Amino acid sequence: MEGQSHVLQLKCDPIPTVRIGFIGLGMRGKGAVTRMMAIEGVEIKALCDLEQNNLDIVQKNIIDHQRDTAMEFTGNTGWQELCHREDIDLIYICTDWYSHTDIAEYAMEKGKHVAIEVPAAISVEECWRLVNTAEKTRMHCMMLENCCYDRFELATLNMAQQGIFGEIVHVEGAYLHDLREINANPRISETQRYEPGIGTITQDEPGIIGYHKQWRQQYNIDHTGNPYPTHGLGPVCQVLNIHRGDKMNVLVSLSSNEFGISEYVEERFGKDSPESKQEYKMGDVSTSIIKTEKGKTIVVEHAASTPRPYSRIHQIAGTKGFAQKYPVNQILLPSLSRWALPKEKVDSLLLEYKHPFYKESEEQAEELRMIAHGGMDYIMDYRLIYCLRNGLPLDMDVYDAAEWSCIAELSEISTKNNGAPVEVPDFTRGAWNELPGLIFAK
Amino acid sequence: MEGQSHVLQLKCDPIPTVRIGFIGLGMRGKGAVTRMMAIEGVEIKALCDLEQNNLDIVQKNIIDHQRDTAMEFTGNTGWQELCHREDIDLIYICTDWYSHTDIAEYAMEKGKHVAIEVPAAISVEECWRLVNTAEKTRMHCMMLENCCYDRFELATLNMAQQGIFGEIVHVEGAYLHDLREINANPRISETQRYEPGIGTITQDEPGIIGYHKQWRQQYNIDHTGNPYPTHGLGPVCQVLNIHRGDKMNVLVSLSSNEFGISEYVEERFGKDSPESKQEYKMGDVSTSIIKTEKGKTIVVEHAASTPRPYSRIHQIAGTKGFAQKYPVNQILLPSLSRWALPKEKVDSLLLEYKHPFYKESEEQAEELRMIAHGGMDYIMDYRLIYCLRNGLPLDMDVYDAAEWSCIAELSEISTKNNGAPVEVPDFTRGAWNELPGLIFAK
Repeated sequence: MEGQSHVLQLKCDPIPTVRIGFIGLGMRGKGAVTRMMAIEGVEIKALCDLEQNNLDIVQKNIIDHQRDTAMEFTGNTGWQELCHREDIDLIYICTDWYSHTDIAEYAMEKGKHVAIEVPAAISVEECWRLVNTAEKTRMHCMMLENCCYDRFELATLNMAQQGIFGEIVHVEGAYLHDLREINANPRISETQRYEPGIGTITQDEPGIIGYHKQWRQQYNIDHTGNPYPTHGLGPVCQVLNIHRGDKMNVLVSLSSNEFGISEYVEERFGKDSPESKQEYKMGDVSTSIIKTEKGKTIVVEHAASTPRPYSRIHQIAGTKGFAQKYPVNQILLPSLSRWALPKEKVDSLLLEYKHPFYKESEEQAEELRMIAHGGMDYIMDYRLIYCLRNGLPLDMDVYDAAEWSCIAELSEISTKNNGAPVEVPDFTRGAWNELPGLIFAK
Repeated sequence: MEGQSHVLQLKCDPIPTVRIGFIGLGMRGKGAVTRMMAIEGVEIKALCDLEQNNLDIVQKNIIDHQRDTAMEFTGNTGWQELCHREDIDLIYICTDWYSHTDIAEYAMEKGKHVAIEVPAAISVEECWRLVNTAEKTRMHCMMLENCCYDRFELATLNMAQQGIFGEIVHVEGAYLHDLREINANPRISETQRYEPGIGTITQDEPGIIGYHKQWRQQYNIDHTGNPYPTHGLGPVCQVLNIHRGDKMNVLVSLSSNEFGISEYVEERFGKDSPESKQEYKMGDVSTSIIKTEKGKTIVVEHAASTPRPYSRIHQIAGTKGFAQKYPVNQILLPSLSRWALPKEKVDSLLLEYKHPFYKESEEQAEELRMIAHGGMDYIMDYRLIYCLRNGLPLDMDVYDAAEWSCIAELSEISTKNNGAPVEVPDFTRGAWNELPGLIFAK
């Protein structure tokens, strides 16, 4: 765009103490505050949520950590008031998917860096808004794709970057996670919870797990395709150096019809319940294939409404080797053996190629019991703060956020059109081949 | 077609002793003869091959089994002469892919039942020829899809048919098998073989493994898409009752470019070798998504030119449960646990749902050391002969052969057109919903 240039490798002034405002303290926000309190050079400056209960829980947690309480914002315009503050450097957004881009755009325009939970955007138009706003304001816009910091993903990225797999020709990622129970939960009151196989249980303490006003189930009512592609895509796009030497060109996608949600809500709530009478557009299983400029293929899957073992697949297939994370860690390297390596050898390779991030932060992360998700959330936040404090480019930029998020709408378009090929936008506007590959700033 | 009706559940007169003529005694034919000699009510009547060496090896094997030697046919018209014989009931075709349909069509027209190695055909036009010829001649035409008889596949089919997985919404199958060495082999003479990491080794005994005149590598030179879809597709199409209550409607497919074959032949034969100068159209990894009339999805993958663990995936995802064969047997049934079942429980379920075919034939198969491929080849042949001897419909009909084979050309068309959706023909011409599901005749 005129008067605008790309923000690849964007550097901003170092921020010795990063003052954070958190917007959204639900299922992801609470843990984010806890993690950030464990990282040096961070001030928990402000909190915003629609529910006073969430604000109270987090403030209590802050006091328990012998910290000063944070400013509080609430109500429908609270997030805007928070963005207007001059004493905040980073806005950390953990709201529902629908509001991510609006908040991020507004925050960048008010001169704040933003970190946004996944997906950063739910439409191609929103992706462009994030890119354009980041380019105009020259602020950082990072999507909080924690799976890029998981142990296996980082070790195999390390191996890929050292050429162990040869030329990478095909990768797969996924989000296969049975979410039927949690997506249907909020009908239960805060002192009742649902236990599969038992039914509704009344409990003394409030605070069941669920999505505010069932926003995630609402998405299942309104949309199909792959609503949640980034956990699977992020790590494999890094392996392929997407917009750092290659780019996604075309996508095709098909979904099964919806069977799982309907069957589940009928069994749980009864045939005559509003949940059972509701139609859900979201197909149970979505599969997309993406082809890149350099001739590589990416498969991305999503399945959240049928029972199945959790998996993100994370497959890397190259001319010199193969790795896959789920359901069991597999590595095959013909230079060592023509068969998949035995577990002990896989483990020793993962140790040999342990990513520097894990070497640096692992002890600290475990000490601080930030072991939820195996430490990846902690390492993600630690890297974000490290780069901001040192004026370095972030590990993931606004183009990553746009590329990985846009697959939601693109897969829906393709699915609704019988699998017709859809072009994947080049959000860098031609600069995808300027960088020599993915490099994490030191 | 006018004057033609479908051959669903086709029954022919019982054949007390099935007299077999084998055409093609290369990599699959030799073992087929051995297996058939172990089955009651079979006569090894005739053999046909282009190479006298293959004929000699098989005749010696027949003599070693205290049997009468078989008639021999050879040369370019040998297969036709064999088909003209009046004393043959079944033609068992194990030639290269290119000749399967020509031979099968000719044999049926000469009043013979045919069993054809996979794939039965390599184009949609060939698939229609098989269907039309079978309908006109009222002869059986079965594709020898051995993977439909594997232990895990049959046990999970049994579970699916008993409703254990609920409504099946998504399935996956594949042929992921590093064939680089074998596909490039025939340049080596019959007293030399190639050992990865060592090089060419001279040996006393002839008989290396390879494809006659490199026909399979020739296919890689001329084609892309998924050249070999049937091993993955067969078992999952049976689970979905394809053309027995559901049908495949549309397919999209993309392949990575070819990197693996070129890199391999350059390392093995040198940069200036004819193999290195050759272009290969076949992409390293092919992925297809198919949507069915009833709203189910099928993913089929193929990868034969990069190093990776052998896998056919074999995934079944339903509303009440999940199973996957590779890389480790997985079963998840929420009625038992919300987590993937431990190995002991998976094993006991596979035993509980062991398919009747295995109960019937397992001991015999192991006794006879027909344990290559875990006994599935033996069970396939045993079922074929059992049904022919008893005048029953075969387990797999000509529509299975056509449906599973046609994916080769359809995936190539889609791949060459940037993943454009391709309609899957209804080879039953509207009769796909007449049968109530897959039933194996007793």
